[in-house]
Amino acid sequence: MSEFKLTTVEEFEAATERLLENGAKVGADSWQMRVKNQTPHCKFGESGACCRICSMGPCRITAKSPRGICGCDIHGIVGRNYLKFTAGGAATHSDHGREICHTLYESAADGNYKVKDPEKLIRIAKEWDIETEGKDIYDLAHEVAEAGLMEYGKPFGFQRFLKRAPKHTQEIWEREEIAPRAIDREVASSLHMTHMGCSSKPEALIRQALRAGLCDGWGGSMMGTEFSDVLFGTPKEMETEANLGVMVEENVNIVVHGHDPSLSEMICEYADDPEMIAYAKEKGAQGITVSGVCCTSNEVAMRRGIPMAGNFLQQENVVLTGACEAIVVDVQCIFPALGPLSKCFHTKFITTSPIAQMPESEFIRFNSHTAGENAKAIVKAAIENFPNRKKELVHIPDLKQKATVGYSVEQIVKKLDGVTNSQVDELGTTKPLIECIVSGVLRGAVAMVGCNNPKVRPDAAHISLMKKLIANDIVLIVSGCSAQAAAKAGLMDKRAKDLCGAGLKRVCELADIPPVLHMGSCVDISRMLILAAELSKDSGLNISQLPVVGCAPEWMSEKAVSIGNYVVASGLDTYLGVEPYASGSSEITGLLTGGVKDWVEACYTVETDIDKLGDLMIEKIEEKRTAIGI
Amino acid sequence: MSEFKLTTVEEFEAATERLLENGAKVGADSWQMRVKNQTPHCKFGESGACCRICSMGPCRITAKSPRGICGCDIHGIVGRNYLKFTAGGAATHSDHGREICHTLYESAADGNYKVKDPEKLIRIAKEWDIETEGKDIYDLAHEVAEAGLMEYGKPFGFQRFLKRAPKHTQEIWEREEIAPRAIDREVASSLHMTHMGCSSKPEALIRQALRAGLCDGWGGSMMGTEFSDVLFGTPKEMETEANLGVMVEENVNIVVHGHDPSLSEMICEYADDPEMIAYAKEKGAQGITVSGVCCTSNEVAMRRGIPMAGNFLQQENVVLTGACEAIVVDVQCIFPALGPLSKCFHTKFITTSPIAQMPESEFIRFNSHTAGENAKAIVKAAIENFPNRKKELVHIPDLKQKATVGYSVEQIVKKLDGVTNSQVDELGTTKPLIECIVSGVLRGAVAMVGCNNPKVRPDAAHISLMKKLIANDIVLIVSGCSAQAAAKAGLMDKRAKDLCGAGLKRVCELADIPPVLHMGSCVDISRMLILAAELSKDSGLNISQLPVVGCAPEWMSEKAVSIGNYVVASGLDTYLGVEPYASGSSEITGLLTGGVKDWVEACYTVETDIDKLGDLMIEKIEEKRTAIGI
Repeated sequence: MSEFKLTTVEEFEAATERLLENGAKVGADSWQMRVKNQTPHCKFGESGACCRICSMGPCRITAKSPRGICGCDIHGIVGRNYLKFTAGGAATHSDHGREICHTLYESAADGNYKVKDPEKLIRIAKEWDIETEGKDIYDLAHEVAEAGLMEYGKPFGFQRFLKRAPKHTQEIWEREEIAPRAIDREVASSLHMTHMGCSSKPEALIRQALRAGLCDGWGGSMMGTEFSDVLFGTPKEMETEANLGVMVEENVNIVVHGHDPSLSEMICEYADDPEMIAYAKEKGAQGITVSGVCCTSNEVAMRRGIPMAGNFLQQENVVLTGACEAIVVDVQCIFPALGPLSKCFHTKFITTSPIAQMPESEFIRFNSHTAGENAKAIVKAAIENFPNRKKELVHIPDLKQKATVGYSVEQIVKKLDGVTNSQVDELGTTKPLIECIVSGVLRGAVAMVGCNNPKVRPDAAHISLMKKLIANDIVLIVSGCSAQAAAKAGLMDKRAKDLCGAGLKRVCELADIPPVLHMGSCVDISRMLILAAELSKDSGLNISQLPVVGCAPEWMSEKAVSIGNYVVASGLDTYLGVEPYASGSSEITGLLTGGVKDWVEACYTVETDIDKLGDLMIEKIEEKRTAIGI
Repeated sequence: MSEFKLTTVEEFEAATERLLENGAKVGADSWQMRVKNQTPHCKFGESGACCRICSMGPCRITAKSPRGICGCDIHGIVGRNYLKFTAGGAATHSDHGREICHTLYESAADGNYKVKDPEKLIRIAKEWDIETEGKDIYDLAHEVAEAGLMEYGKPFGFQRFLKRAPKHTQEIWEREEIAPRAIDREVASSLHMTHMGCSSKPEALIRQALRAGLCDGWGGSMMGTEFSDVLFGTPKEMETEANLGVMVEENVNIVVHGHDPSLSEMICEYADDPEMIAYAKEKGAQGITVSGVCCTSNEVAMRRGIPMAGNFLQQENVVLTGACEAIVVDVQCIFPALGPLSKCFHTKFITTSPIAQMPESEFIRFNSHTAGENAKAIVKAAIENFPNRKKELVHIPDLKQKATVGYSVEQIVKKLDGVTNSQVDELGTTKPLIECIVSGVLRGAVAMVGCNNPKVRPDAAHISLMKKLIANDIVLIVSGCSAQAAAKAGLMDKRAKDLCGAGLKRVCELADIPPVLHMGSCVDISRMLILAAELSKDSGLNISQLPVVGCAPEWMSEKAVSIGNYVVASGLDTYLGVEPYASGSSEITGLLTGGVKDWVEACYTVETDIDKLGDLMIEKIEEKRTAIGI
């Protein structure tokens, strides 16, 4: 076994530099160039001080014009922008969840989609008081799916999954009137509140922003995760690799990108088909390699060990290798730049969802009834594109790391069972983890999530924070592009234990895990909520008392704000490395970074000095330990 | 009877000028001043060329930076902004409709809310295949209300009311895949499509903008209208008055403002209570006058003849009279400026809805269970505020006009029955109107709607267009702030027939109607859809063939764009006097003003020269006449 060494951000950057040179040969544009063109950013927009909510404007708040034409002040304007931003994220995550519900509804024993984890389906059905006895598993799947779909639009009541939270948390939500009703209703109500001439009171806007976040985290996202597990299997520990070096020059390279596993699972299925592999060979390739970008990559890595080519700001790089026959996308975080970029190479840019239609792409409309034939057509198109490579442009950076992934809550609990004395201790709980924390072997945990953002040196914040935290005996649970940053660096290699403090190192060895645990895609942050809830119940502490915090050092999307809101509203202090568009209002920032604590026992910290951000998290974890006397 | 004369816009403005002087005495701010501070507007925002959808930006498109950081071009950015704007409007109207559904669900024989039009309720129930026989009317109300609420969130199928449209229109919606599914789903899907890295293809974005509009017009708004009629009565011809002169100096003046009749109806109820009137007298007043602003005013004018104090840009004026004891608001189009402004006077600014919470207001939370006591408390608070008037500030402009209002479709059909030869002709149809149009006595109709916007000389566009159109024998059906402009000018006085061409004048005399027909509030534009559908069915022509167009010369809100989209998508060409934030993209404006015609047989015309806008409408109406050979 070769010596283990992390890949550095400098090495990432050198590889990117080389690829950009490749692009320059064919006149390719890149985000690096566009950032230069778009900088500096508009200060009004960046501080949230610009209002375009009605066509009397746009209005911009300055010292000389302290109110918009309607009379709204800076706090109302920033607050409304913040709530609209959240609503966009909550709607997006949840609509992904809805698609999964529809896929479950269409599942059939002889269909494109099958139930791979019936045990989990039955567990959820019981939780939802749906009769399971003597029922065909597909009848049950359809019944549960329909109940799930009703969570989006039921006229009365609150989200079913709220009951998974500790009682104390549920009481907070009720008391503060932020328990989410039907998911889509919270989205629509948010837009109503932010319409011209509706709410301009900061407290009202931020309260609804928390509620809209909660309908995502404990609603749409949680259903997205749970039903994806039912359909495609609950993730288990799995070996894979990460970074552009997972692409194979001799093979047909298909890159899946986006978020919904309904597409990527099918692509993986057909790329494994002997008929397809034979066809690839016929076209001069040695085989077919599917790799992933963004959260779709996390989905198939967690369930199939499909390698991860990269995260958000690396999506152009896969095309720049000149070795990508097709980049196949569904929804969210897909650069429209891939259209013109793919035209500079032989790459086929294939869009598949009515939700994400882009110019200069080939649109193959994917749906559950035709998923098989759609996937086959896509794989075939990629294979047939192999001979079109421009050989002089082919360059795959020789960078990759091994990663152990697949840490669903179920898998984590199973790992913990492994270190339990089954003669004495209860199985199937998080108690061993709590014992490690109480004893101080572990100081706490950080849930690190979110995107890349050119405002932060890409991946550098994720990786440097993780290194700092594990060195301080703080275990990382990660998802999304944060997880891919970790994997690319090597932090999901079990050998990364050597970078940990003595306590965490011992835990890694004992449990045979890496110090940074991959929990999945961005909807899978719902797994982290469940883990926090279990820790709370198993420890008797409130979530807000646990030495656990959330962190999104490089976030960029509306979804990230929705996530931040539900994490905070669930009682976990959350640390951001990028400013939300809210700095223009002292009242809104005051609420977000302080005031909401009175409602939900947690709040945000925004700190763009990443090193300091790490220190603040460690301080907070130690402060929480002291408060509970451990 | 005194000689009839229209009130001129110059007279409106002189009255406003005098009130602003009143305000200046107490340091009041005004929209007129704020417009000066906010002009010129940001060109990026105004043209839709600014993107704040993710926190990598904001990005602004220029010749030198033709793409955002993600690679989105101007067309994608403008299109996403346009779709988000529409979604805001559709959500807002529809959420109002949802509140009405909930109110209907809470109706009870001995409750705050009763069923006033059981016949209409039964008619809708039958339309929706809900069994009515032998059912208690409140049981039926609850059943219909629940079915209505399900229109917001049902997992499968399309809006029930689509079946009211002509078959041809329904086929278009199906063919173009713009038939709206659950209302909230269309809103949430719009936000998903506009999330970072989803749709950037103009056709996809505009198609969804039409669909989101349709879920408003044939969904949320239509339910808002229909169930308001069930609860509060279907409007019938009614006499009232309009303009600030309806406020009575000697009385306690309560102004209702906003949109949802659930509040205003209750306030009117209690203001009529002898106990309250006695209490007002006790406090030195001679009585209580309730008048209205914005659409809430339209609601209570149409059903109770409550006078209309003014429209959108007149909302500050009611406070500036110094004679307003309380301005009581619910949702939408309420200036946050009313907070600080009311503090300059004795006026109580009372907010009542969790959806619209504002600083410097008194919040009395209104709900269907406590509506009676809430309304009583509000009326009482207003009465008790009467002695606090600052006499030196009291000035009510001596301006008002008589108006005949209440032209629901039912009322219009009844009016038409009145001119029908019942021996020969079918009753209960729009055929007499069609005959007038076919014969050329009437050239056509314009549905004029929407707000005021300081970008247009307030009310001037509405009034000048109406005068021009009626002089050309074109009948007006109007709603919202457009209706109030007409009423304030005197165009809803039956004597305004003398300003019409000979044909329209004869129709007005025969049917005993004014030339400008008040159809209600902005959700009541759904009435116009039904009228257009009936005209289509009764004539055998497609909606797009009728010599009827829509017009919003002074629009300003997200709702207005949603309305425009559903009017266009229903086949009616629509004329705007204010640019939407879309001029930055040739592709988006190309679709809106042309391309969508290939899909839905109608499109937009934007023309800020108001006189020319009128000419274009007349031309279009004549063109349509020629096309069908009349």
